[in-house]
Amino acid sequence: MKAKRLWVLMVLAILSLLTGLTEIAEAGGDPSGAATFTDDVAGLKLAVNFAWTLVTGFLVFFMQAGFAMLGGLLRKKCMTNYLTKSYMDFSAGALTYWLFGFALMFGGSALGSGLDKGNWFIGYSGWLLLGDAYDVVTMEVWLFQMMFAATAATIVAGLCAERLKFQAYLVYSFFVCGIIYPIYGHWVWGGGWLATLPFGVGARDFAGSGVVHSIGGLVGLAGAIALGPRIGKFTADGKPVAIPGHNLTFVVLGTFILFFGWFGFNPGSTLAATDLRISAIAVNTFLAGALGAITIAYLTYGVTGKADLGLICNGALGGLVAITAPCAYVHPWGAVCIGIIAGFVMMYTNKLLEVVCKIDDPVGAAGVHAANGIWGILAVGIFADGSYGGVNGLITGSAWQLLAQIIDAIATIAWALGLGFFIFYLLKATIGIRVEPEIELEGLDIHEHGTPCYPEDAIKV
Amino acid sequence: MKAKRLWVLMVLAILSLLTGLTEIAEAGGDPSGAATFTDDVAGLKLAVNFAWTLVTGFLVFFMQAGFAMLGGLLRKKCMTNYLTKSYMDFSAGALTYWLFGFALMFGGSALGSGLDKGNWFIGYSGWLLLGDAYDVVTMEVWLFQMMFAATAATIVAGLCAERLKFQAYLVYSFFVCGIIYPIYGHWVWGGGWLATLPFGVGARDFAGSGVVHSIGGLVGLAGAIALGPRIGKFTADGKPVAIPGHNLTFVVLGTFILFFGWFGFNPGSTLAATDLRISAIAVNTFLAGALGAITIAYLTYGVTGKADLGLICNGALGGLVAITAPCAYVHPWGAVCIGIIAGFVMMYTNKLLEVVCKIDDPVGAAGVHAANGIWGILAVGIFADGSYGGVNGLITGSAWQLLAQIIDAIATIAWALGLGFFIFYLLKATIGIRVEPEIELEGLDIHEHGTPCYPEDAIKV
Amino acid sequence: MKAKRLWVLMVLAILSLLTGLTEIAEAGGDPSGAATFTDDVAGLKLAVNFAWTLVTGFLVFFMQAGFAMLGGLLRKKCMTNYLTKSYMDFSAGALTYWLFGFALMFGGSALGSGLDKGNWFIGYSGWLLLGDAYDVVTMEVWLFQMMFAATAATIVAGLCAERLKFQAYLVYSFFVCGIIYPIYGHWVWGGGWLATLPFGVGARDFAGSGVVHSIGGLVGLAGAIALGPRIGKFTADGKPVAIPGHNLTFVVLGTFILFFGWFGFNPGSTLAATDLRISAIAVNTFLAGALGAITIAYLTYGVTGKADLGLICNGALGGLVAITAPCAYVHPWGAVCIGIIAGFVMMYTNKLLEVVCKIDDPVGAAGVHAANGIWGILAVGIFADGSYGGVNGLITGSAWQLLAQIIDAIATIAWALGLGFFIFYLLKATIGIRVEPEIELEGLDIHEHGTPCYPEDAIKV
Repeated sequence: MKAKRLWVLMVLAILSLLTGLTEIAEAGGDPSGAATFTDDVAGLKLAVNFAWTLVTGFLVFFMQAGFAMLGGLLRKKCMTNYLTKSYMDFSAGALTYWLFGFALMFGGSALGSGLDKGNWFIGYSGWLLLGDAYDVVTMEVWLFQMMFAATAATIVAGLCAERLKFQAYLVYSFFVCGIIYPIYGHWVWGGGWLATLPFGVGARDFAGSGVVHSIGGLVGLAGAIALGPRIGKFTADGKPVAIPGHNLTFVVLGTFILFFGWFGFNPGSTLAATDLRISAIAVNTFLAGALGAITIAYLTYGVTGKADLGLICNGALGGLVAITAPCAYVHPWGAVCIGIIAGFVMMYTNKLLEVVCKIDDPVGAAGVHAANGIWGILAVGIFADGSYGGVNGLITGSAWQLLAQIIDAIATIAWALGLGFFIFYLLKATIGIRVEPEIELEGLDIHEHGTPCYPEDAIKV
Repeated sequence: MKAKRLWVLMVLAILSLLTGLTEIAEAGGDPSGAATFTDDVAGLKLAVNFAWTLVTGFLVFFMQAGFAMLGGLLRKKCMTNYLTKSYMDFSAGALTYWLFGFALMFGGSALGSGLDKGNWFIGYSGWLLLGDAYDVVTMEVWLFQMMFAATAATIVAGLCAERLKFQAYLVYSFFVCGIIYPIYGHWVWGGGWLATLPFGVGARDFAGSGVVHSIGGLVGLAGAIALGPRIGKFTADGKPVAIPGHNLTFVVLGTFILFFGWFGFNPGSTLAATDLRISAIAVNTFLAGALGAITIAYLTYGVTGKADLGLICNGALGGLVAITAPCAYVHPWGAVCIGIIAGFVMMYTNKLLEVVCKIDDPVGAAGVHAANGIWGILAVGIFADGSYGGVNGLITGSAWQLLAQIIDAIATIAWALGLGFFIFYLLKATIGIRVEPEIELEGLDIHEHGTPCYPEDAIKV
Repeated sequence: MKAKRLWVLMVLAILSLLTGLTEIAEAGGDPSGAATFTDDVAGLKLAVNFAWTLVTGFLVFFMQAGFAMLGGLLRKKCMTNYLTKSYMDFSAGALTYWLFGFALMFGGSALGSGLDKGNWFIGYSGWLLLGDAYDVVTMEVWLFQMMFAATAATIVAGLCAERLKFQAYLVYSFFVCGIIYPIYGHWVWGGGWLATLPFGVGARDFAGSGVVHSIGGLVGLAGAIALGPRIGKFTADGKPVAIPGHNLTFVVLGTFILFFGWFGFNPGSTLAATDLRISAIAVNTFLAGALGAITIAYLTYGVTGKADLGLICNGALGGLVAITAPCAYVHPWGAVCIGIIAGFVMMYTNKLLEVVCKIDDPVGAAGVHAANGIWGILAVGIFADGSYGGVNGLITGSAWQLLAQIIDAIATIAWALGLGFFIFYLLKATIGIRVEPEIELEGLDIHEHGTPCYPEDAIKV
């Protein structure tokens, strides 16, 4: 068994080598950038936009650290497991997205050299960045989009925390980064059918409320349902029991890192600093995040007299998720409204799922990502003020864009929940998805990883 | 009571909606950037400077995470409270700065469309980014300046930690971000009276030693005085008692994050990458921070044989605060001198306040921000070498600039301490500012937020 | 003794002042940038590249926080000590690099004004950024290169952790940042003999696998050997004993921060965004880091059934170190291969050092930095595909470049290990390098710094 796994790596390496050797002869892109960059206004414009796209892409990468830190909402005994998943999903995702995910998503988009083949449903060019796709522009797009794929994959770790087998998680990451995310992404960003709907200007999801957050959140929700709640989450008569986490400092740090990264996520999605709308996008992102937090502070401090820090962080994240689709299309006052509503959406979705549906979502990711992702898609159709990209929402007196957004929302839910259930129930029927009860009670860390997250504390106890 | 608070949000949303609807018709700015960006050298220059200002603004935002992590200097039982304040002050600040703070500060500055009305004392245009202010350039300025306002607000959280009521803190944040900070800021950066003093080139505070750090630090100092020391901070005969924090790793992380963010704070304050002085600013920022740390390492390791990590971090921060005003005007050797002196200023201010004045400043923010902010303002008048902006300090043989800086320093102290005392004593007389002694002893976390910061540890104990 | 130390500071300040006063008159560079920036394509190009170099330099700075967080692999009782070293080495390094390190490294490189004097072995101009070196371009280079020097210095802290005297560490930092690193760096990046070897295009180390990581790792290795293992690391019959750290969350956070910073380290090393190859560099960096982690996940999960989180992090870092030299010269599939091999190199180097050589490397830095630095240098000669900079590796059918890289690798090992042993054994014979056994057992924190890292926990216990 072990030997086989090592062989996989070896074969991969040798295969790459051979493919690569062939590839050098036939390359048709511009791998060095020497032909693409010209010493004039056009060349400089490209360089400015390269720098912008890469730097914002780096910020999006850093969001991985933010997601990891949200593990403070979990119990110590499962923290190593959560962190390992957080770390491995972007790593495994990198491999699959390089091998085929990127080709499925942006083939046919014509966003760079070698991305010429694809149809309304799926792309099929740009594999392994070989051939014509070995080009500076194509690689710039790859880097930025890769970071988004990794974000979608990591969201599910929270929803399935403290009970999902590590092996099942690796398989799942493979599917999300390699198939579920790229194909849906192709529909919206790769020139597929949602982007070209005949209502309004077609469905618009600027930076991915739907593409990234709803997809991640809904697949995770399917996982949480397939897994069932953690032992002890509900009393015998179905009342939810609060399971407090272990470190709110980490949660706050994680939220700040995510917020920081979002300034890459949203403004970076122009792929161009020469699109000066980036300032409005940054302002809208900031305001929606802030108002999401304020709303929850009011809701908790106003109702109970106690400002709930964990919920405030989720309120901020909810606001950020919701503004992600409409960030480029609305006025700051629209962002304020969207953020306020996002706070309510986060709070009551999570209450509904926990109290009524008896679903156990340890970090509250369903309300943050799944529900607010959908709210973000719809908000485009309501608050878009017509100042950018020709997108006109309800407030301008037109309902056509909203129709496109509703279709987008339905497609998102159907695709993500459908495939999410399919994969998780398939895994459940085959390799199994849930750890044994005794492992769950003792914590996954020792059993799956051989070490507690805080070894010295563990020794003392 | 609760219902009322929810209504506030609702009304705000509806109001925004209505204002917004009107606004669409009358907008005179360029919200999309399509008219502002031109496909030539002038347009590209704008785009480069947009990218620079936004990216550095994002770095400044990230400093919020750094301030939050400094909570490691506090005790566990008050950490949730400190973190909640850290998180809420920038959120609440966002709302007030959007509603009116920005208009008070930059109205009349002509830095962007819709910022035309203001006088020597106060600005009054740009409200809610509506009308002509719905413009890409204005929003770029807003984003960057908003981050600075948030920084000023968060400094006070440290000085008032472990005893200030959460409600009082929210009210305070409102005033600092909405009134104290913007009006003073208008005097220095918005074209007000300090910037146009008839000595030297007028008072200069490049990135805000005074505007941001002294204001935040001095208002916080007023708060610390109004609150009085924590229970147990001084013995019956007035001797200070060390109250160790709970996590120096967080403190070091926070200091690194702040240092990182300062590279946005100072070089970003050119608002332009085409101003190549940014490299000197970055070098000066780095050297002053490093020398602040080295000075304290010498002072503590040399005197006691023990290098005090918490103080070293504060030394670095003191150096960074001090170089904030003069960063653009001095030679690297000047930055080295400023940083060395900043270490002494931090150390002995905090000793003076604690031992002589019996003021309890849990994180040492008075020495870092208030005192070194003032030192930074004065350092402009001493070390400016005339190579940039026509600012000539004492070392060039002229004392006029120093005179302008002294007036600036006096104005800062008068404004910040004056209004700081006014607000804190007003709050003390009305809603109260200090929690009950039993709450303080048990920790604010349970009482104000319903959860300890490290719930699992708390359960075990 | 104390007084003497303070005098050092005073004298430094006064000396700086006097030097500075003279300097103003004779400056021949462009300190304000007003002459360097021109309002045309050439000027804008400069500005874009300034912004790129500075922002990526800031990211490299932030890596210091990542290194500090890796202290989670150590025991609590030595964490204050490790953090203080982490903090002080970049601060002390800043001073020495400003005083003379930069001049030794880039004198003669002609990369900026005032860097005109130097030979094949050493540079000697640019001291203290005085005279002609007070120039915006020179300061831009200084800022970026300073961050690299700090990185090299901080790597050794891990290898020597838990037993090295603080005083010895300060002396060491001085030598690494001021002498070992700059002189070697001059050979590779400052126009010295390695860069101009008559094989291939001369030795190439794009972003410093050798210059930064091997140098840091190998000097640290010399330190670890000179120090000997920690008490209890090996049993009486020489079997290694696992000494678990205290906080894996910090380790993961540190790894994410380092990964994030590496996007500055590698793509930033073009010093130009107008060199569009930056997108390929970022892609390669990302893939190698991801594959390093995947390889270790396979190796540990496949062999033991337990995915070892600490090792996975080191696998990612090993991949990143290895891709640092070849990042600009290889195709993404090459980066994948390099990352996979880097995982093996990291794992088996550390096993070899621990089990066979009985060397105690508390954080595994030898395998990550020393060994993978060498692997990275060699990988240039193997995988470079000829698409950039005229660098042709074995896969293009030429072995000349590999020869140059082998010479580079040998020079690196000889220089770093040689001088490393020299300094550590010199210190050992004079001021001593290892703390007393009782201090080591009780932890360095109390004895060298007067405070545990987690004071409240310590009080309870």
